[in-house]
Amino acid sequence: VKPKIECCFSPALLDLYDFKNSIVVVIDVFRATSTIAAAMSNGAQKIIPVDDVQKCIQLGSEIENSITAGERNGVIAEGLAMGNSPSVFSPEIIENKTLVLTTTNGTRLLHMCRDSKEIVSASFLNLSATVQYLREQKQDVLLACASWKNRFNLEDSLFAGAVYKELKDEFEMDCDSVRAAYDLYKNAEGKLYEYIQDSAHFNRLSKLGLQADMEYCCSIDKHDVLIRFDGEALIS
Amino acid sequence: VKPKIECCFSPALLDLYDFKNSIVVVIDVFRATSTIAAAMSNGAQKIIPVDDVQKCIQLGSEIENSITAGERNGVIAEGLAMGNSPSVFSPEIIENKTLVLTTTNGTRLLHMCRDSKEIVSASFLNLSATVQYLREQKQDVLLACASWKNRFNLEDSLFAGAVYKELKDEFEMDCDSVRAAYDLYKNAEGKLYEYIQDSAHFNRLSKLGLQADMEYCCSIDKHDVLIRFDGEALIS
Repeated sequence: VKPKIECCFSPALLDLYDFKNSIVVVIDVFRATSTIAAAMSNGAQKIIPVDDVQKCIQLGSEIENSITAGERNGVIAEGLAMGNSPSVFSPEIIENKTLVLTTTNGTRLLHMCRDSKEIVSASFLNLSATVQYLREQKQDVLLACASWKNRFNLEDSLFAGAVYKELKDEFEMDCDSVRAAYDLYKNAEGKLYEYIQDSAHFNRLSKLGLQADMEYCCSIDKHDVLIRFDGEALIS
Repeated sequence: VKPKIECCFSPALLDLYDFKNSIVVVIDVFRATSTIAAAMSNGAQKIIPVDDVQKCIQLGSEIENSITAGERNGVIAEGLAMGNSPSVFSPEIIENKTLVLTTTNGTRLLHMCRDSKEIVSASFLNLSATVQYLREQKQDVLLACASWKNRFNLEDSLFAGAVYKELKDEFEMDCDSVRAAYDLYKNAEGKLYEYIQDSAHFNRLSKLGLQADMEYCCSIDKHDVLIRFDGEALIS
């Protein structure tokens, strides 16, 4: 019997899914899980996701050799060292450090999925590493889109479709969200950044001048790293 | 300024949308809003949607010249006269009658949208009549998918995409759900019934032998009727 794969388009729909025995893939393409992939690939020791700026500052002051990062409304949150652009976490900045990262949609979703068998953090930047791991585990998978304030978004759904495309022969699927995500991805494949330019998140973030960030997030397999959540921190 | 068009993929996401001043298009392709279009087009005086079988039986006994209808788990609910197949509501059966119809997903959604400016009930069977009305009103529109037990489904989303395709030049849109629905509909257009055969609802209903029903529901513009909800009943 093949394991099952499903997709949840919004954290507000998460309670419709029974993921106790599943690997949950947390997806927040713009930009939490992209930033996490970049930072981890460039040598971060671990990444502690927190929902709150004050908690981020406090943990940053308590943990030796740490960096704080996070944005609110597209700018570095007051009191934090770095923003949420994946491209800025170069090895020079992040190697062997603990990144304390505050994000809104992504962090909340990580904590909502605590009761799963396992959580991995994924984005286009580490697509293949994620897919390879899921293939080997042979466990049920839930692709969980962080969405934007609980609203369906294109970029996370497209990533879910990209994962399914790679795994479809090895998983059972009877989930319209997966079907839709896969169909959308087939439309976007090979021109992801172009395709995503007609999306709500692109419109919001490009007003903040973050086009280069989004183009970076659309690079496939730039960072060959599998990222798991150990209950407190993201580790590779 | 053009009016705005948005789409909500699940009743569980409805509270993310401000539809107080919008026309809400309730969509339950398999099969409530398809059955409603067929019955109304074939002469029903009005259709009273209720969520509960007992309430359906009671109203049926109170209202003169009425017919009760509804299914549970794909068979006619005990105590009701008719099922939920759009094709059975011929003029001989329904003309000048009040249909008391119990459905689950569709009825619940109708009542959830009560605070909107207006509610219309739509399906592929009355696509053009619905589109024409929305075009004339020049009001904000929310395309509200009944979904299946709150899960995203393909058929309702495809219909949302079909509506947007017709209205896109006359409405402002910055909603990824609309974008996705429209993209999916472009993939399915011209081969809707074939496309929908790979969907969760098709799988469920075809096990009950309801393929002909679903093919009927995929007919575009079979019933040229606009259907509005007056707060108690659906009327044309």
